[in-house]
Amino acid sequence: MQVGELPTPALLVDAALLEHNLTTMARALGGRLRPHVKAHKCTALARRQAEAGATTFTCATIREVEGMAARGLGEDLLLANEVLDATRLGRLKARVTVAVDSEATVLAAARAGVREVLIDVDVGLPRCGCPPEEASRLARLARTRGLTVRGVMGYEGHAVGIPDRNLRAELTEQAMSILVAAHAEVGGEVISAGGTGTYDLNPWASEIQAGSYALMDTAYARLDLPFRQALSILATVISVSPRGHAVLDCGLKALGMDHGKPELAGDHEVLLVSDEHLTFLPRGRVQVGDRLRVLPAHVDPTVAYHERMHLVDGERVIETWEVDLRGW
Amino acid sequence: MQVGELPTPALLVDAALLEHNLTTMARALGGRLRPHVKAHKCTALARRQAEAGATTFTCATIREVEGMAARGLGEDLLLANEVLDATRLGRLKARVTVAVDSEATVLAAARAGVREVLIDVDVGLPRCGCPPEEASRLARLARTRGLTVRGVMGYEGHAVGIPDRNLRAELTEQAMSILVAAHAEVGGEVISAGGTGTYDLNPWASEIQAGSYALMDTAYARLDLPFRQALSILATVISVSPRGHAVLDCGLKALGMDHGKPELAGDHEVLLVSDEHLTFLPRGRVQVGDRLRVLPAHVDPTVAYHERMHLVDGERVIETWEVDLRGW
Repeated sequence: MQVGELPTPALLVDAALLEHNLTTMARALGGRLRPHVKAHKCTALARRQAEAGATTFTCATIREVEGMAARGLGEDLLLANEVLDATRLGRLKARVTVAVDSEATVLAAARAGVREVLIDVDVGLPRCGCPPEEASRLARLARTRGLTVRGVMGYEGHAVGIPDRNLRAELTEQAMSILVAAHAEVGGEVISAGGTGTYDLNPWASEIQAGSYALMDTAYARLDLPFRQALSILATVISVSPRGHAVLDCGLKALGMDHGKPELAGDHEVLLVSDEHLTFLPRGRVQVGDRLRVLPAHVDPTVAYHERMHLVDGERVIETWEVDLRGW
Repeated sequence: MQVGELPTPALLVDAALLEHNLTTMARALGGRLRPHVKAHKCTALARRQAEAGATTFTCATIREVEGMAARGLGEDLLLANEVLDATRLGRLKARVTVAVDSEATVLAAARAGVREVLIDVDVGLPRCGCPPEEASRLARLARTRGLTVRGVMGYEGHAVGIPDRNLRAELTEQAMSILVAAHAEVGGEVISAGGTGTYDLNPWASEIQAGSYALMDTAYARLDLPFRQALSILATVISVSPRGHAVLDCGLKALGMDHGKPELAGDHEVLLVSDEHLTFLPRGRVQVGDRLRVLPAHVDPTVAYHERMHLVDGERVIETWEVDLRGW
């Protein structure tokens, strides 16, 4: 099939750029990479990451863990998130480790028959994670309940997106000094942390939970990273106004908007995004029926709107992948 | 089933508030209401709108038209949007009218075997719609190609969300003076326009394309409308920090963010929304396992993330509806 035959809006993945991203990250981190599937929610893409060397994966939802296990990618799955009803995890035929940061989440894991946990430590991002001084107490509680504590986790999410590399490195070091200290109390082999923005700035973590590097977005593209924007949304010009603007069939239900408006290849200026439309100011002439590429500002909530993504080589569609890890 | 048994995040629809909204709108507009299904993307909810008196519906995508037709709701479906490949519409066993605003879209409709069109006129919103002076030429072209021109359409989307009622009314009147003039040139019985914010301010339109009124959101709740927020997202507190914040399992993949952050019932302050988390500052004590209601800022892109919505009466789940019109 040709790209020109796809109904729009359609999620496109440039095969060569994806390959570049996967290879670049695999070379940089080797076995320390634990790719985060939340960014793409696609087991076919996860399989490519496995082919590039990954044997462990990170998930954000129970559905992601289930989907990865069902596709034979369950050798070592980390649910890097807190859950209170872990019943579905306990049933899986896969190695599942879950993050815990409170008595309630430790007890939920034990009750559900989950076997392994990481103690999730607050390293500065105002989100999940226990206070560092609580980590050893939770680890003891978990061991008392028969759980294996594999180590600690702590996400420096307040650092990963900072454009200034020195500041990003400094915040990462501060965060990891907290995590390393907690690890000394907790024990185990794992110090799980990191993201695409800090993948080469975090030597303290034994594994890096990077996700965005595979597909990338305009927010991460502003950083000094070697990864390229492999993801775009193919859209059709459905209207051109003599007032100067034109309209694409790619709106709020095809795009995560929390990081702001998307960009357009070809330097057209995005004016307005509404439910099923993107209004833009063309640079140069466009006409009804033209097809343009929209570059999303945030990959994760963008992909989560789409049923499938198309792997393309120029104008040729090589494969179509289901975005099969959506929902909860 | 009880609400407490639902896995979270879960989309909840308060049955009494939905009923209030449907009844209030039906009383106000009667047969002039052409409900827009893009806001809820759910044929079960559309059926409730039909039971409240609607015989015509508005859609934004081909998938929505197909889904409505497949469920026997195809008595009079308007695709209020431009499409260049209308093949799937031409095949449907339903009455389908499509908006056109250019030669290309007229020809696409004719080629696909669509029978009826509305001439979409630019009434001020920078989006689709032909210049008013082009409307009669397009209508002639459409008739030459064997299409029935039912009339005109023009969406005053730049007016519907304005909090000041007088200004909203003024902008609506300006927009509709353009549309009424174009209608005089085009002919036909239909003047299709309007939205939830202008439902009672637009006597010029023969039909009103309101969608948000059924479920509502915090953006529309700021207006002086008689509709109530029937939609919320049930979420679980998964982490509580001694630093003062707490975390819900409802993030960017459960929420449209283009209108800004959601609100929380109970007056808690939303601080930060990330992929699968909402960090908030609790007013009063919350603990891990508590369940709260998140009120989205924009209903349409929120619903489009969810596979289903649960109709609830207090703590009882009455029905579960598939959000079956998602995608394209």
